[in-house]
Amino acid sequence: MITLYHCDGARSFRPLWMLEELGADYELKMLPFPPRVLAKEYLAINPLGTIPFMVDGATKMTESSGICHYLGVKHGPTPLMVGPEEADYGAFLNWMYFSDATLTFPQTLVLRYTQLEPEERRSAQVATDYAKWFLGRLRAVEAATANAAFLSGGRFTAADIVIGYALRLADTLGLVRDFGPNVAAYWARLQQREGYQRARTAEQRAGEEQGIKPRVRP
Amino acid sequence: MITLYHCDGARSFRPLWMLEELGADYELKMLPFPPRVLAKEYLAINPLGTIPFMVDGATKMTESSGICHYLGVKHGPTPLMVGPEEADYGAFLNWMYFSDATLTFPQTLVLRYTQLEPEERRSAQVATDYAKWFLGRLRAVEAATANAAFLSGGRFTAADIVIGYALRLADTLGLVRDFGPNVAAYWARLQQREGYQRARTAEQRAGEEQGIKPRVRP
Repeated sequence: MITLYHCDGARSFRPLWMLEELGADYELKMLPFPPRVLAKEYLAINPLGTIPFMVDGATKMTESSGICHYLGVKHGPTPLMVGPEEADYGAFLNWMYFSDATLTFPQTLVLRYTQLEPEERRSAQVATDYAKWFLGRLRAVEAATANAAFLSGGRFTAADIVIGYALRLADTLGLVRDFGPNVAAYWARLQQREGYQRARTAEQRAGEEQGIKPRVRP
Repeated sequence: MITLYHCDGARSFRPLWMLEELGADYELKMLPFPPRVLAKEYLAINPLGTIPFMVDGATKMTESSGICHYLGVKHGPTPLMVGPEEADYGAFLNWMYFSDATLTFPQTLVLRYTQLEPEERRSAQVATDYAKWFLGRLRAVEAATANAAFLSGGRFTAADIVIGYALRLADTLGLVRDFGPNVAAYWARLQQREGYQRARTAEQRAGEEQGIKPRVRP
């Protein structure tokens, strides 16, 4: 049994969505945000205090896109993964790594310096610097979705899940109004997927059952 | 033939080091930093203007740790990769993704807001926030190297290359004085590797041959 620790709307949504697309059995444990402060007992489970945390037997992982990669390989074979024998393997891998390192981190700066920090520590300059950074990098997604429904392999894959979460976060942060037309249409397509909707329902239901209030909502 | 675009000391050092460890043939093209400003013709090659950029036949990639992953799979088999059949597969993948998303991005903030931005846009607060962030996450490396020479699979792997670059960058930024004892010893071990030294020599030689001056030196 796979256990996934998750905060409402956090990047742990990536493996949650992947698990739903795979149809895998899993247990979803909800935590208040930030768990480091509001659920100190979590530090005994994940000493870094970060979200996500996934346990699968002896395997423990903390990286949201890396967990999707792991699940696709270990709980596959699945068309959600693009294999080394396919022409798009390099493109697929690039999106997998791009999703968090290049698209999500800049958004966490916008969130931190406009909302999470106390007033006197906020910085409009830094938030603007990294909103621009995010939107600059998003041009790669705009170009890739000009003539294709999905990012790689000619089908919906884990790359769409990990990039899709970055779009969900952008939506939450109000950056959605700066999406180009291709990204906007792509994001609308992703939200229509049953797997995405099941993951959203699972997140909401687990929060209600475990008494963890929703945090932010697009 | 693989072509790698690189700036002195930039995270494109990861695939350069990987290529040297693999013993692969490659062409190294040096660019001044930042290429977006100082080598505008590069935008025709990589529209994002980011470094690295790798071309291998029809495959083009921009993510430094993702390129190492790609090279290990497509130009292997190699003991530099930990396979799905090994117990440490999840740990290996986690380090691969952790290296850039979690360890390198915070360091780029330190660099940006202490050195790259003009004086009036610098921010000691943000630089300190993300130096602390980096050092907090580095505790995972400190724990992993307490009783092991390398991070995963009981041997030197691509995970050590991608994490090793984050340590090189920290060294350049002066964060090395805050390394724990295990990380300090691990970083010393990595620098002794012939593959690391060959990559450093290749970087220096290509810069001299192509008339690109070194940028920063640990």
